[in-house]
Amino acid sequence: MNIYDVAKMSGVSIATVSRVVNGSDKVSDRTKQKVLAVMEECGYTPNVFARGLGLDSMKTIGILCPDISDAFIAQAVAFLENRLHKYGYDCILGCSGYDTEAKKVHMERLLSKRIDALILVGSTYAGHGKDDNNLSYIYEAAQKTPVFLINGLIEGENIYCCYGDDFQAVYDVTSELICRGKKRILFLCDSYSYSARKKLAGYEAALTDAGYPALNELKFYTKNRIHYVRDMLLEQKDLEFDSVVATDDCLAIGALKYAKIKGMRVPEDICITGYNNSQLSVGCEPELTSVDNHLEKLCDNAIDNMLKVFQGEENVPAKTEIPCNLKKRCTTDF
Amino acid sequence: MNIYDVAKMSGVSIATVSRVVNGSDKVSDRTKQKVLAVMEECGYTPNVFARGLGLDSMKTIGILCPDISDAFIAQAVAFLENRLHKYGYDCILGCSGYDTEAKKVHMERLLSKRIDALILVGSTYAGHGKDDNNLSYIYEAAQKTPVFLINGLIEGENIYCCYGDDFQAVYDVTSELICRGKKRILFLCDSYSYSARKKLAGYEAALTDAGYPALNELKFYTKNRIHYVRDMLLEQKDLEFDSVVATDDCLAIGALKYAKIKGMRVPEDICITGYNNSQLSVGCEPELTSVDNHLEKLCDNAIDNMLKVFQGEENVPAKTEIPCNLKKRCTTDF
Repeated sequence: MNIYDVAKMSGVSIATVSRVVNGSDKVSDRTKQKVLAVMEECGYTPNVFARGLGLDSMKTIGILCPDISDAFIAQAVAFLENRLHKYGYDCILGCSGYDTEAKKVHMERLLSKRIDALILVGSTYAGHGKDDNNLSYIYEAAQKTPVFLINGLIEGENIYCCYGDDFQAVYDVTSELICRGKKRILFLCDSYSYSARKKLAGYEAALTDAGYPALNELKFYTKNRIHYVRDMLLEQKDLEFDSVVATDDCLAIGALKYAKIKGMRVPEDICITGYNNSQLSVGCEPELTSVDNHLEKLCDNAIDNMLKVFQGEENVPAKTEIPCNLKKRCTTDF
Repeated sequence: MNIYDVAKMSGVSIATVSRVVNGSDKVSDRTKQKVLAVMEECGYTPNVFARGLGLDSMKTIGILCPDISDAFIAQAVAFLENRLHKYGYDCILGCSGYDTEAKKVHMERLLSKRIDALILVGSTYAGHGKDDNNLSYIYEAAQKTPVFLINGLIEGENIYCCYGDDFQAVYDVTSELICRGKKRILFLCDSYSYSARKKLAGYEAALTDAGYPALNELKFYTKNRIHYVRDMLLEQKDLEFDSVVATDDCLAIGALKYAKIKGMRVPEDICITGYNNSQLSVGCEPELTSVDNHLEKLCDNAIDNMLKVFQGEENVPAKTEIPCNLKKRCTTDF
């Protein structure tokens, strides 16, 4: 018996049950009576939401990420921990890797602790786009505790998502390359995550809108390792391209290393764009034009929403999309 | 009343008290009786060590680091979390920053949770070398729970340290530069942490052994930001140097950017070495020669020792020094 069941049996939303539990005056008396009756009937103890209010709360938040050694994810966890600490919350950290079974195990572990909320860091938790059954463990988690997803979208009750507008960002950068006369734009990617799918869709839409085909041979999937990317590209003897749209800075730098070995001038002979505007983008030479997806804003939004949910606020947005912007440096001529 | 007091009052080590608590047969009957008598007299409940054994344990380890967005630290936490998860332990993560007061607050927070051990990630926790009173909060923590320090040395009961041989690594690289005829070797550093002090000592010793002075003007302290380092070096119009020994890859890449603007060829006109062998060292151009301090070994050692302490093993080493090695790439001619 959990808050989800109470909501279902009362015919109201989880947020409404939360408001009843928290004594909000924004609920009609009729609704309040109905919810309280169901709660009494079921012997339901409203621990999940009460916790967030400091009643029976351990003031502990579970943070699950695939790999904390990834610069983007480490930066997100740094932002989250910093704000959570200010509000008096501790963080239990789980690093699940990218495999669904391992994600389930790690999530179970976090849920078995007395956490007030679960924050998922990374697009990988929004599935691979093929089999949405993969997400059932997240829906189950959301029945026990509010779930906040950073950089991906899962639609479901008690799940709050915040992500950059990756479609538009890649659409814009691809269109810019087309405007500069680029004909063979390589899409360089390392996953099929929610974010990666949005980026691919942006790339394809820009080509289609310009009347170009989106050729499969120009969608290149590889591992997220600089030298690996370089070597994979060098192996493709017949693959020609005059520009690269990469979904991560690390991939873009692999392309930069490739261009150097091939004796291509950047950006004169080949334009390259990265993603995440990481420290790597200023460490390389020439320095990398990269999409900034405003990670700090995404993290701030998740924490803001979390605090609102804890306070039983109405209308906490289930999804928030934040525009990205292109940080122009020296690997493009725009 | 804690295990430390019991040890003191019994006139034995914490490890011996732990062995008594755990029923080890490696303790003489005489000692056992003495310890048990003290425990009974004080009404001591042996929770700390019992926890590690699964008795009354939350199977939770506190990990305190200054900044998880630092690549070196993030990599360490990734290694630690991975192994801890395998042994069934969860991680509570605290990010304290570099200020002593904030470190104390974060440590108190972690200790107030039921943690089985505390892992400190980063040389910063071993103090600034000037005021060792700064370390009293760590000695106090060690009276409550075993403390494991990665990449630094604090000597004290119930504190176990594992660190790279930074002195030797910088001694060797400085000596190599001297052999190559370098006369003005810039030491580029961003802190006064334990590790930074060992590196400085190695630099100075190599110069002294070669009969060179260790000039203060060539010990350059700056922030750990690529462009900041570059700009600070450009501002020093009168500072001349023919090589750079940096205590972090990020600093070294700042020097690389400086060299590019000054039109110096690397390594012909200037040799540059970094530290930590991070992803940045292969992202830059030319790729950076960097000291690898075997972070994974340091983390593995900490976990191995932790498990031994939990099992009440004798002779768990209080300090372990692991040799570093130089990963040679293109910013040096050796």
